[in-house]
Amino acid sequence: MVNETQHTCSTSSSSKSDGGSSSGSESSKDSSRCSTPVLDADRHERLREKMRRRQDSGDKWFSLEFFPPRTANAAVNLISRFDRMGAGGPLFIDVTWHPAGDPGSDKETSSMIIANTAVNYCGLETILHMTCCNQTKDDITGHLQKAKRLGLKNIMALRGDPVGEEWEEEVDGFNYAVDLVKHIRNEFDDYFDVCVAGYPKGHPEAESYEADLRHLKDKVFAGADFIITQLFFRAETFLKFMKDCQAIGITCPIIPGIFPIQGYHSLRQLVKLSKLEVPQEIKDVIEPIKDNDAAIRSYGVELAVSMCRELLDSGMVHGLHFYTLNREVATTEVLKRLGIWKEDPRRPLPWAVSAHPKRRVEDVRPIFWASRPKSYIYRTQEWDDFPNGRWGNSSSPAFGELKDYYLFYLKSKSPREELLKMWGEELTGEESVFEVFTCYITGEPNKNGYKVTCMPWNDDPLATETNLLKEQLEKVNRRGILTINSQPNINGKPSTDPIVGWGPSGGYVFQKAYLEFFTSSEIVTALLKVLKKYESRVNYHIVNVKGQNITNAPDLQPNAVTWGIFPGREIIQPTVVDPVSFLYWKDEAFALWIEQWAKLYEEESPSRMIIQYIHDNYYLVNLVDNDFPLENCLWQVVDDTFELLN
Amino acid sequence: MVNETQHTCSTSSSSKSDGGSSSGSESSKDSSRCSTPVLDADRHERLREKMRRRQDSGDKWFSLEFFPPRTANAAVNLISRFDRMGAGGPLFIDVTWHPAGDPGSDKETSSMIIANTAVNYCGLETILHMTCCNQTKDDITGHLQKAKRLGLKNIMALRGDPVGEEWEEEVDGFNYAVDLVKHIRNEFDDYFDVCVAGYPKGHPEAESYEADLRHLKDKVFAGADFIITQLFFRAETFLKFMKDCQAIGITCPIIPGIFPIQGYHSLRQLVKLSKLEVPQEIKDVIEPIKDNDAAIRSYGVELAVSMCRELLDSGMVHGLHFYTLNREVATTEVLKRLGIWKEDPRRPLPWAVSAHPKRRVEDVRPIFWASRPKSYIYRTQEWDDFPNGRWGNSSSPAFGELKDYYLFYLKSKSPREELLKMWGEELTGEESVFEVFTCYITGEPNKNGYKVTCMPWNDDPLATETNLLKEQLEKVNRRGILTINSQPNINGKPSTDPIVGWGPSGGYVFQKAYLEFFTSSEIVTALLKVLKKYESRVNYHIVNVKGQNITNAPDLQPNAVTWGIFPGREIIQPTVVDPVSFLYWKDEAFALWIEQWAKLYEEESPSRMIIQYIHDNYYLVNLVDNDFPLENCLWQVVDDTFELLN
Repeated sequence: MVNETQHTCSTSSSSKSDGGSSSGSESSKDSSRCSTPVLDADRHERLREKMRRRQDSGDKWFSLEFFPPRTANAAVNLISRFDRMGAGGPLFIDVTWHPAGDPGSDKETSSMIIANTAVNYCGLETILHMTCCNQTKDDITGHLQKAKRLGLKNIMALRGDPVGEEWEEEVDGFNYAVDLVKHIRNEFDDYFDVCVAGYPKGHPEAESYEADLRHLKDKVFAGADFIITQLFFRAETFLKFMKDCQAIGITCPIIPGIFPIQGYHSLRQLVKLSKLEVPQEIKDVIEPIKDNDAAIRSYGVELAVSMCRELLDSGMVHGLHFYTLNREVATTEVLKRLGIWKEDPRRPLPWAVSAHPKRRVEDVRPIFWASRPKSYIYRTQEWDDFPNGRWGNSSSPAFGELKDYYLFYLKSKSPREELLKMWGEELTGEESVFEVFTCYITGEPNKNGYKVTCMPWNDDPLATETNLLKEQLEKVNRRGILTINSQPNINGKPSTDPIVGWGPSGGYVFQKAYLEFFTSSEIVTALLKVLKKYESRVNYHIVNVKGQNITNAPDLQPNAVTWGIFPGREIIQPTVVDPVSFLYWKDEAFALWIEQWAKLYEEESPSRMIIQYIHDNYYLVNLVDNDFPLENCLWQVVDDTFELLN
Repeated sequence: MVNETQHTCSTSSSSKSDGGSSSGSESSKDSSRCSTPVLDADRHERLREKMRRRQDSGDKWFSLEFFPPRTANAAVNLISRFDRMGAGGPLFIDVTWHPAGDPGSDKETSSMIIANTAVNYCGLETILHMTCCNQTKDDITGHLQKAKRLGLKNIMALRGDPVGEEWEEEVDGFNYAVDLVKHIRNEFDDYFDVCVAGYPKGHPEAESYEADLRHLKDKVFAGADFIITQLFFRAETFLKFMKDCQAIGITCPIIPGIFPIQGYHSLRQLVKLSKLEVPQEIKDVIEPIKDNDAAIRSYGVELAVSMCRELLDSGMVHGLHFYTLNREVATTEVLKRLGIWKEDPRRPLPWAVSAHPKRRVEDVRPIFWASRPKSYIYRTQEWDDFPNGRWGNSSSPAFGELKDYYLFYLKSKSPREELLKMWGEELTGEESVFEVFTCYITGEPNKNGYKVTCMPWNDDPLATETNLLKEQLEKVNRRGILTINSQPNINGKPSTDPIVGWGPSGGYVFQKAYLEFFTSSEIVTALLKVLKKYESRVNYHIVNVKGQNITNAPDLQPNAVTWGIFPGREIIQPTVVDPVSFLYWKDEAFALWIEQWAKLYEEESPSRMIIQYIHDNYYLVNLVDNDFPLENCLWQVVDDTFELLN
């Protein structure tokens, strides 16, 4: 029977021919296959595999180091920086362990929580530093367990600075980083990717450069996957170090730590801490300009660029690690000048993915949280499964309670005074609210001369894609259709399109037109009459804060409104309008009127009562035009509604 | 907290407004929702629900009755008739219980297996008749359990004709249909929809017409869902009966049994069996023409059409049940003239669905079995889950063994002599095989003057859709690219398109171009060189009978090649090219060379050796052009290959 023949099957994407049953490759009938289309290998590989793949393909990469901030406000800013710098495409970021800042706690400024936010909410591959000196085994295990629970997958194992002047080794204690590496491998097997520190000039406390190299080798052989080095000032320092490492059998990746000089004082402080010496030729340049920050930064960028070029040109370096000091400008400039900052990062999906391992398969979300992805991630963090290919298959019905969601980084980034300037110190009626929405859309200043750069439903300026609809949006907001979410219809644009593209190249992306807004019950009454004409074409959900719900969605089914067709893959449909989750979103969307806007005003004040009135009486409406190849009819629906009202 | 508000949500497709928490409708947060897009309510409703929905919507419908055939050959023909008559859109078919034919057995001609085939392989809603007279409770329970196991959901409960002249009631036995109805409800609760027989003239053995009505009422009150009547000759007979039923409280649907007179002898036999009297006015017409079959049939059709019109016009009748006597012409003509035969039945999916309840969610299949859907259903009959939305999620990796698949109705419908005429009494080389393939594509007669209407991989003439590619297919087959499956690319045609459309109206369907063929290793070598030029655009799988496998499919992922976008729904992607199942298909596709073609010839004969050579040395190739919005490049790939060979 032919059936008995051994099947062989290529698992690689390159063409190859197997030699039949004798080739010994896996039998494809039994082979496991991906249960989700692999759109982006980055989501599925561990950090060391990503590094390996980049090295094999010759793609240069960079990574960014941050330290935990001291205040909650600074944390909010740092998260925004993660989003902005994440857009440049770092292979990973790392967050230092700040022993004085209760680093393993749940405080919003702890190392653990900052790293958690980077992974889960900013979708960044993240290394959490961890020191072991002066800590008990139980403490360390507890931290590692917590890190694992939060979805962190990479640890930088460090000794840390001993407390007190006279440090002595503890018997059976954690005296060196190597002890921590061993502990991680003993207790967590291969779960974590482990990074260790290398010292191109030798650790200041080591007996000798050679002895320090041997310590490094011990760390690697204990189970470290790669090395990040201390900063240095000359490329030759690193290249020599790397050769010395290789000479004694260290073969794992060694990533040079780059410190762009950004100011005189920060340089001095860092040099003092790391016990390094600044080369005379650098001192000679800096000393004369030490009070001119701009000049020093400019020199620092120049110096970093030329050193990085030398490293990359050596052929020995594939990735560069940047000590950012939580600053953005200098590092970004160096990266842009090196050409490794991604100007147009390909979006794997049309929304911001999370890097938590359990969300690796997540590839569909309701459109409602499009402008509040962190809130969506927060409210679904307890889910065990994430929708994989289809909504409703594996999605848990329970969203996190609304009352829990006021995470510090979901708060508005703007202080109350600024919000009042944007949204009005005093509202005189519903029309003043229309005006705020209109200004947000147009980007024009309001009547007091302030630009409206955020709204309760959207902490950022208007998305590029929404700009495509700007003119129509302005018109309808002015008349009380208060839009909070929309997308144009797209009939098969290349997946590489800079505005609406996402996913791997060679594909085509599609969208159904979508419009979501708050509006009065008078407008809803007219709208419903108009929608009868569009019954088979437009799906709608109309709901008020009390849960009165009007819809023509068939059988509570989700409506896919964004999808992509790619070579060699199943269809990806990452965004849906789902009748069930809409009712959870409704609670959040209405609550934002009160929590973010009404509460800016005194209780009982007319302004507060106006917002309260809207909250109590308006409806939240969403409309989908199913006929994506035709011209978007939703504007016509709105026009017809206004006409009916006149 | 607004969160506490009761959510209400419409579950119907029509627009309606719920009155908030006081409306008492289900809370949507907890409501279960469809895990699969409901494309076709018919696949999800039980028969009585379908009837109800048709009655509510005013759509007239029909059903068809068949009896089990006596021979295996007749069974093969009956299954083909199911496919052809199923295309006209019957609400259900029913299969009579043939006590003398071992009706519950596994024989290919048993009532049970014929009904099983209708449900599972022809996708028809099916009622299995069952009689209870002279049978033990265990026998009956056994039959019902088996029917349930096979996926049958509807039983027509009958007494059956007593064996022997002097029938006596058994105490506690199954003496009347009502006993069977009660038994079904006792033992199987609400699993089955139960139908019972009604006698518009009264049962011939009943004490009186009134007594018979009371028996009918007993059957209905014991749990029957609807009634199908014995045949009758005048509309008024049925309408009076229906009013009499309603008068005594029978409210379930009553479906008139229609018998189009098709011949003198069959009429006489049926009348004798059913103890009915033929009205004088009919006798007066028929007697003079009793030897003229065509005239009688023509009169029978006329009579049936006018009686059916009268029934439908009464407003009391929504469906008509036809006693076909396993014949096609008369019933089809009546239905066409009544305008209730669906000339262009909407396909719910691009392949023939199965009506087994466990396959209700099945909405994706590999393209390979496109011309052998019954084989696919057979080989996956043991699966517990069917791919639902995505291939590979829930599909079992195990296909049924190839050696089991020679089910009688998978055999060729043509006898050996006919196949030899079509495929060649004597082959002179590979070119004679190319010639057979070419004739099948073109529809032209072969050199002996016979048309090639089937091939081992396709028991039917070329699909309409394939006709779109006819010219190119002819060209390549002539040169040894022996095509067995193909589809054109489609970039968003309406779902109502008569050739490529499927699914509900208002949608758009898409396809990637697909081509599958056997070809020599010389051509494969050239093809592989050519494919390098198309690397990012064309996905390919190339395999020989020994399992040597060459592919560029990324990560063993399936490639969706047919998909549809519909209003208010997730994307449906019913056809994939899947690297894993392709290797199962490969075994079947290669085996068909030997089993269906080579074995037509004597062992050691040159003809047989030619087929054996092709089987042993050719490759099976499939190609997908991922760039569906552009002109299909697969013909260019083949042209380039031929050019390279020249």
